[in-house]
Amino acid sequence: MVNETQHTCSASSSSKSDGGSSSGSESSKDSSRCSTPVLDADRHERLREKMRRRQDSGDKWFSLEFFPPRTANAAVNLISRFDRMGAGGPLFIDVTWHPAGDPGSDKETSSMIIANTAVNYCGLETILHMTCCNQTRDDITRHLQKAKRLGLKNIMALRGDPVGEEWEEEVDGFNYAADLVKHIRNEFDDYFDICVAGYPTGHPEAESYEEDLKYLKEKVFAGADFIITQLFFRSETFFKFMKDCQAIGITCPIIPGIFPIQGYHSLRQLVKLSKLEVPQEIKDVIEPIKDNDAAIRNYGVELAVSMCRELLDSGMVHGLHFYTLNREVATTEVLKRLGIWKEDPRRPLPWAVSAHPKRRVEDVRPIFWASRPKSYIYRTQEWDDFPNGRWGNSSSPAFGELKDYYLFYLKSKSPREELLKMWGEELTCEESVFEVFTSYITGEPNKNGYKVTCMPWNDDPLATETNLLKEQLEKVNRRGILTINSQPNINGKPSTDPIVGWGPSGGYVFQKAYLEFFTSSEIVTALLKVLKKYESRVNYHIVNVKGQNITNAPDLQPNAVTWGIFPGREIIQPTVVDPVSFLSWKDEAFALWIEQWAKLYEEESPSRMIIQYIHDNYYLVNLVDNDFPLENCLWQVVDDTFELLN
Amino acid sequence: MVNETQHTCSASSSSKSDGGSSSGSESSKDSSRCSTPVLDADRHERLREKMRRRQDSGDKWFSLEFFPPRTANAAVNLISRFDRMGAGGPLFIDVTWHPAGDPGSDKETSSMIIANTAVNYCGLETILHMTCCNQTRDDITRHLQKAKRLGLKNIMALRGDPVGEEWEEEVDGFNYAADLVKHIRNEFDDYFDICVAGYPTGHPEAESYEEDLKYLKEKVFAGADFIITQLFFRSETFFKFMKDCQAIGITCPIIPGIFPIQGYHSLRQLVKLSKLEVPQEIKDVIEPIKDNDAAIRNYGVELAVSMCRELLDSGMVHGLHFYTLNREVATTEVLKRLGIWKEDPRRPLPWAVSAHPKRRVEDVRPIFWASRPKSYIYRTQEWDDFPNGRWGNSSSPAFGELKDYYLFYLKSKSPREELLKMWGEELTCEESVFEVFTSYITGEPNKNGYKVTCMPWNDDPLATETNLLKEQLEKVNRRGILTINSQPNINGKPSTDPIVGWGPSGGYVFQKAYLEFFTSSEIVTALLKVLKKYESRVNYHIVNVKGQNITNAPDLQPNAVTWGIFPGREIIQPTVVDPVSFLSWKDEAFALWIEQWAKLYEEESPSRMIIQYIHDNYYLVNLVDNDFPLENCLWQVVDDTFELLN
Repeated sequence: MVNETQHTCSASSSSKSDGGSSSGSESSKDSSRCSTPVLDADRHERLREKMRRRQDSGDKWFSLEFFPPRTANAAVNLISRFDRMGAGGPLFIDVTWHPAGDPGSDKETSSMIIANTAVNYCGLETILHMTCCNQTRDDITRHLQKAKRLGLKNIMALRGDPVGEEWEEEVDGFNYAADLVKHIRNEFDDYFDICVAGYPTGHPEAESYEEDLKYLKEKVFAGADFIITQLFFRSETFFKFMKDCQAIGITCPIIPGIFPIQGYHSLRQLVKLSKLEVPQEIKDVIEPIKDNDAAIRNYGVELAVSMCRELLDSGMVHGLHFYTLNREVATTEVLKRLGIWKEDPRRPLPWAVSAHPKRRVEDVRPIFWASRPKSYIYRTQEWDDFPNGRWGNSSSPAFGELKDYYLFYLKSKSPREELLKMWGEELTCEESVFEVFTSYITGEPNKNGYKVTCMPWNDDPLATETNLLKEQLEKVNRRGILTINSQPNINGKPSTDPIVGWGPSGGYVFQKAYLEFFTSSEIVTALLKVLKKYESRVNYHIVNVKGQNITNAPDLQPNAVTWGIFPGREIIQPTVVDPVSFLSWKDEAFALWIEQWAKLYEEESPSRMIIQYIHDNYYLVNLVDNDFPLENCLWQVVDDTFELLN
Repeated sequence: MVNETQHTCSASSSSKSDGGSSSGSESSKDSSRCSTPVLDADRHERLREKMRRRQDSGDKWFSLEFFPPRTANAAVNLISRFDRMGAGGPLFIDVTWHPAGDPGSDKETSSMIIANTAVNYCGLETILHMTCCNQTRDDITRHLQKAKRLGLKNIMALRGDPVGEEWEEEVDGFNYAADLVKHIRNEFDDYFDICVAGYPTGHPEAESYEEDLKYLKEKVFAGADFIITQLFFRSETFFKFMKDCQAIGITCPIIPGIFPIQGYHSLRQLVKLSKLEVPQEIKDVIEPIKDNDAAIRNYGVELAVSMCRELLDSGMVHGLHFYTLNREVATTEVLKRLGIWKEDPRRPLPWAVSAHPKRRVEDVRPIFWASRPKSYIYRTQEWDDFPNGRWGNSSSPAFGELKDYYLFYLKSKSPREELLKMWGEELTCEESVFEVFTSYITGEPNKNGYKVTCMPWNDDPLATETNLLKEQLEKVNRRGILTINSQPNINGKPSTDPIVGWGPSGGYVFQKAYLEFFTSSEIVTALLKVLKKYESRVNYHIVNVKGQNITNAPDLQPNAVTWGIFPGREIIQPTVVDPVSFLSWKDEAFALWIEQWAKLYEEESPSRMIIQYIHDNYYLVNLVDNDFPLENCLWQVVDDTFELLN
């Protein structure tokens, strides 16, 4: 909130590029009661339950407010920011409603689509703001239906700003947030968790502070679950407000809204819009340094940290809501200094989970999309049931086609010029492609001095786990085994292992060695001869772009390649090599050569023709070494293949 | 078949007491195509498909015919015989239809109930014979419906014998087996596999051999899937018959019926009933030794082996059907000498599977019923879905109550007098009960010189696997930790391990250490103190007969305690410790003290009161050591408990 018009602030500032991996980021705390074997309670609880559980356990939390971006490029950046800030463990994020920006539409910059992306693709518990004035009942119902369909579970119900200067009641319309709360409860029963806004110094348009408290009580009694407050500058303001609320019978959680001052101009604009008074002692500090952004931000962080400490120490506050203005540095700094930024390296599952309620039991995925979880979510968004416990097979519905490579949440974070520097302004032969793969693996700069930090199949630098295989991967990529996915075999490491661990503590995790790569038909011919020797040990799938498919796997049977054994639980096997999905992945993996790489070059250019040649002629191969307790034999398989070729 | 009246032969003879464990006995051969991760194709194929697969692979097979017993005691013996002979790997067994014995009823000696027991409780593919003459269409339909409901999938369609001396056609009735075949196909479509009888020397009542072949063709063309022949004495008889069948267009499998001569009188009676001619050369051998049963049986075995060899060597015969006369020795001997008795120590799953089609995907069970699989099947017979992949929880339907302890297939194989010798004619104190448990574990005779080969909770001698724990088990039972179920921890042994292995080859099996026992409240109090030290490692459930339940397990979450990792497959986890089912098992486990043990003694007798005391006051405890890669800590837990008590 703050105010629905605050997104006049720039969205492109201060994108700290820490390149962290996009883990689902939901807390992996165990539940004492869970109706399925899925590991994290967070996937089963509603927001208000999570809030209550955190309050009961004394575990302080925070949440983050964002506004929708104005351009598609800014949307790509915002999603990266969601991933990075999601890693700190917010209880939820919220996305403001921008009436002027077609907020319920399918535009990539709409409130609805940004919130949808946060829930589904970033796995974040999300509140969508919604205002009701100047909108028809039908419009509002349609927005709410759409939000529900997209998997959004929480609404911040707001009145919104008047169109003209003065406020006029509409007959039979929604004039107050309370009307919207009632409407949501009437039409959607208990489906949504509802949040409303509280004004610690009274709403600027209210007749009086007391009058405004009455409105707040009305909103809560209409069915709201909790309150987030407008920003304020002194903790006493909040304490008084909270006591006054309690005095008139408001018992739901009240979450203080925190605004770390990040710059002179943004503060001024905000104050003007929200009609708040900045205390003199703050003005006194800021005015003399108004042209020194860094100094103001440092001061803002200090101020926020000390006020947050007062709030948390009071025992009355369990969570803090941050108005981020879509910026990262100041809020992250405050959270880290407060000690509530919890970058938990532990993962509930080896892949990033989605927060859509339909997917709450999902705990098995094909390994192929390990580096492209958002694309996997996109291609399975129409599924009604998600695999749980076992992948199974014939029952799996089909994958959606991936045509929209340029959907902002599937797009590469790097612009074309950067990609060209990494992948080569000009390719001269297949070997120059091998070099790009090799540079990505080694992390060494390419011959033009640029580091290759992403590939069409991996938008992030090499995973820590893959680093374990770095030496061998480098060797084989140099020779034209172009690896795009791999994992080492693991025979029972503790689930708390910082590199390969996942799930609750006290368990053991296992993996079968996996290697997936593109390679030439010449190498495939030799490989197939070598694989005869490994027939009972190695499962393989070899397919080209036309779908010619060679495999020794029992037809349609998935092979579990990652699993975990935990105290007091059933076995979890989160990744499988599934022969059926591999054919869907194949389409995507081959298409990425063209869509992400070839199209960087002019049509008919030699560079483009080289990529096209690889696309048309290479095979996509995956290998699983079933003997996980023994030394990984896949490198031997590759060595034998090269030996046979020589 | 042979003839529907053959069950005049005694059913109580020659029960070779080899005490083998009752493993499900279905072949564990892998399928090259399987629609679920369940391990054995046999559970998914219809009988005719299994037959075809065996024929294609050149894998010779056999089947066994039995008739329903005349008494309930004989039924208990027959079921043990099913278990023992099932271990040799028959492709199917068949149960004859005895019109005089109320064959479709719920009596424990009815054809229907014996076949039901074979399918559901012994896990054997079973054909139920059914005759049609002198029965109404409605009766027959009702029988077929009941058979289907019970999970029977195969019918041998027969005419049956006339009531009087002469055969009279009934108008609108079923006069021929072909009528029955048509009726089954009309009413049940393709649900049943149908078998019909072939007479290599022509049916005794047929006008001619040629005329009889025409009837056979009619039966086959009415919808039969294969033919089993009447017995014959010379392989040429069968070869001629087979060629004649083929000549008139019969192409379905024809399975020769083999009758190993087992005694002079049974042969005479059989010949009389089936109106067959015994060849002179056989008579010449038998007559002189007609009073020497052993000599005749040896001769019968020789004769059968040599004829079977001729049949198999011809390449025309892929399977042999044995008329066992409900006896074990001769048939088993013939099969072993032919090399087609395949006592495969390998198990598709750690527990004996049921052959009911409803249960074909079942691959998870609570560990509690490990020694009482028939009781488990009985108590879950009303379930519509069976756990597959995961046990889950809230979705599991309730267990049926076990009231019918005396159902013949749940009953102890040992009579009361034997049980008293094993468990004590007279008990003087709780310690005399400890001694019974200890004797069962050690295999040493009790103080009266009798070996304790079964217990109320285990109808068979100690499992080989449990032998691994023998020394520790002996120690703790002596001190009043009365163990009824246990398994060692296993950290990745090959799936072909002769003791703990199961499932297809090339895999690895794992177990968490498990211990389940009755013990006094005094020991429980100390145990609970000790368990605090092991809180994060050991899961426990402790319950008394009243249902007072103490546990540290996450509520309702099952704990997988046996699992296997196989090449190219998803994880299989066939046994779990499930908190909810434990409460159902508790009822059964406590009731067995009274039903099987206390009731051996007079009411008010001291022996009975001791058992009653234990039943009323002891606790049932189960412990799981979650740290399967480390040394089993459960013995240390017990040691610590005793130390605390001293």
